[in-house]
Amino acid sequence: MTEGGGRAASPPPPDVAPFGERLAAAVEARRSQVVVGVDPDPARLWPAASERAAEARALLVSSLTATDHAARDLAGGSPPAPPTPDPARFETAAAVLAHSLALIDAAAPACVAAKPQLAFFEQLGFPGWLALEQVCAQARAAGLLVIADAKRGDVPSTAAAYSRALTGPSPGLAADAITANPLMGRDALEPLIAGGRARGAGAFLLVRTSNPGAADVLDLELADGRPLWERLARMTAELGQGEPLADIGAVTGATAPEHLARMRELMPRTPFLLPGIGAQGGDVAALAPAFSPGRAAGLVTASRSIANAAEARGGDPADAARAEAERLRETAWNLA
Amino acid sequence: MTEGGGRAASPPPPDVAPFGERLAAAVEARRSQVVVGVDPDPARLWPAASERAAEARALLVSSLTATDHAARDLAGGSPPAPPTPDPARFETAAAVLAHSLALIDAAAPACVAAKPQLAFFEQLGFPGWLALEQVCAQARAAGLLVIADAKRGDVPSTAAAYSRALTGPSPGLAADAITANPLMGRDALEPLIAGGRARGAGAFLLVRTSNPGAADVLDLELADGRPLWERLARMTAELGQGEPLADIGAVTGATAPEHLARMRELMPRTPFLLPGIGAQGGDVAALAPAFSPGRAAGLVTASRSIANAAEARGGDPADAARAEAERLRETAWNLA
Repeated sequence: MTEGGGRAASPPPPDVAPFGERLAAAVEARRSQVVVGVDPDPARLWPAASERAAEARALLVSSLTATDHAARDLAGGSPPAPPTPDPARFETAAAVLAHSLALIDAAAPACVAAKPQLAFFEQLGFPGWLALEQVCAQARAAGLLVIADAKRGDVPSTAAAYSRALTGPSPGLAADAITANPLMGRDALEPLIAGGRARGAGAFLLVRTSNPGAADVLDLELADGRPLWERLARMTAELGQGEPLADIGAVTGATAPEHLARMRELMPRTPFLLPGIGAQGGDVAALAPAFSPGRAAGLVTASRSIANAAEARGGDPADAARAEAERLRETAWNLA
Repeated sequence: MTEGGGRAASPPPPDVAPFGERLAAAVEARRSQVVVGVDPDPARLWPAASERAAEARALLVSSLTATDHAARDLAGGSPPAPPTPDPARFETAAAVLAHSLALIDAAAPACVAAKPQLAFFEQLGFPGWLALEQVCAQARAAGLLVIADAKRGDVPSTAAAYSRALTGPSPGLAADAITANPLMGRDALEPLIAGGRARGAGAFLLVRTSNPGAADVLDLELADGRPLWERLARMTAELGQGEPLADIGAVTGATAPEHLARMRELMPRTPFLLPGIGAQGGDVAALAPAFSPGRAAGLVTASRSIANAAEARGGDPADAARAEAERLRETAWNLA
C-alpha cells in the first residue's frame, strides 16, 4: 500500500463536479450537515402515513404498469400466465413507501441528504426495490443528496456491477454516494470508486462502525501496534481525490468520539459519516473535531431518533421528526 | 472473543435439519461438490439463450401481472398514472433471465448448488430482482441448493432485514445459504446467522478471498504475528454449529492453496467455499486438503469458466458448460 497509490485513477470528467465539491456546496446551500436515515420497519410505520398510501400506490402502479405494458408488448401479445395475486406483498411495499415519503418531507428542510438503507427495501422483494427507486427520486426532488447505504464490497467485476446498480443512471439508483466495505482490499474498491467518480458520486468506506461488535475486528491490534481501523483510515485517505474535501469519505462511529481526533489526523480531507447519534447512544456535542476542515467534513446521520422522535417527544410523528432533525441541524451547525 | 462464544445461540428447531447436514446430504445425493455461479453479464449472454426469451418473459410477466392486478385492486380502481414504457429495461432483465435459465439447466446435472451473484441482478433495477427470484426458483426446481452471493454485513437491525431478504420465505429469496462479510464483528453477524439457522440455512463468511487486493487487508499481520484472516477463521469456526459439518462456512480463495491446510486446522468442521477455479487462476488439484473432513467440506465454485467454456472449448455454449461442470465435478470428486 503506497502513499497516494489510489490517486492514479483518472479524475472525473470536467463537466461533472467531484463529490467533495458537490457535498460542500450542498451543506452550505442547505445550512445543514444532517443526513436522515430511511430504514423503514414495516412494524413501526407512522400511522398518519397511511394518508399517503394512495399516492404511494399510484407511484408503484405507474412504474409497474409501464413495465407490464412493455412486458406484454415484448411477449408478442401472447396471453400472460394466470395471475397468482400476492396483495400483501405489494401492500407492504406501498405502506413502506408512504411512510418513507412522509419522513423525507418532514425531515428534508433540516437535512442535506437522505440515506436509504437497502436491506429494509430488499426484504420486501422486488416491490421493495420499486419503492426504493421512488424514495431516491423523492429525496432528490426535495433537494437532498442520496446516500445509498449498501455497505457493498466484492471482487472487481462484481463491484463494477454494484456501482452501476447504485450510482448508475436508470435502471441504477443514481445515488450521489454509497457506503462500501473495504475488507476485500483496494482492487475490490476501485470499480466502486471509479464508477461513482465518473458521475460525480462518492463512497463512504467503513473505517470504525458504531456497533459494539465492531471491536471484534476493526479494533484488532496490528503488528505495528495500531488498530486495524487506522490502516483502513489511511487507505481511505489515499483513495480520495479532491481539495479541500475528498470524494471518498469514511464511516466513523460516533460512539467512539475519543477516536475522532486521530481519525482526522489520518484523514485530513475526508468527509466523515457519523452514525450512532441518538438511538445508538452517540452525543452530537462530542463530535466537534470531525468538523475541523469545514462543516461538510462531518455529516451527522440519524435514523430512528428522527423517525421515532414522537415516542420521546409526543405529538405527531412528522412534527416530532421535523423538530428533532432541526434540533440536530442547529446543534451540529453551531459546533462547526 | 471467547472460544465457542457464538454457540450460545439457540439450535435450529427440531423439524428443520441444520445446513451442515443438508449440505452433506445434497453432496452425497448429487455426487457433486460443484457450485455454478450465476453472474450474468448482459454483454456476454449466450446467443442461443434467446430461444428461451419467450419463457423468461412469460415468467416475468406472470409475476408482474399478479402484482399489477393487486396494485390496481388496492388503488381502489382509480385509473393508473399514464405509463412511461421503458421496454429496454425490462427486455434486458428477460434476456438475463433466459441466459440464467439455460445456464442452470446445462450445469445442474453436475452441480450441487447454484450461486447467483446479486450485483448482476441489482444492476438491472427492480426487473432484475424479479429475474433473481425466478433464478432461485429454477435452481431449486433443478434440485440445487441456492447460495445467495450477497456478501452482506451491517449493524444488527439491518442484518436482520438482510436475513429476511435473502433466506426468509417469500418475499424473501428463501436461499439455503448466503455469503457474508465479517468486518463489523459478531453482533453484526448474529442476526444473519440466527435468521438463517431458524430455517436450516447457512452462511459463508469471508475469510480469505481470491482477488489480488485481498492481501491489502485480510493478510495484514496482527500483534500476535498471525494474519487477520486467521482471526476471521477462528471466529467462523466458533460461530458454526453442527457435527460433523458446521452450518457456518468460509469463503477461502483457491488462489492461495498453501493456506488451505492451516485453514482446515483452524476450522475443522467448516464447509469451505472455494472460488477462483478457472477464470481466476486456481487449480482444483491443489485443493485436496479442503476435503479432508469429507467431500461436502469443500465446495468448488466456478462462474465464468462454466458460462464461457465454449470460448475455450468451442461448440455450443450449453454443451461446453455442461462438459466443463462435469469435468470439475469428476476432478473434485476423485480428490476427496
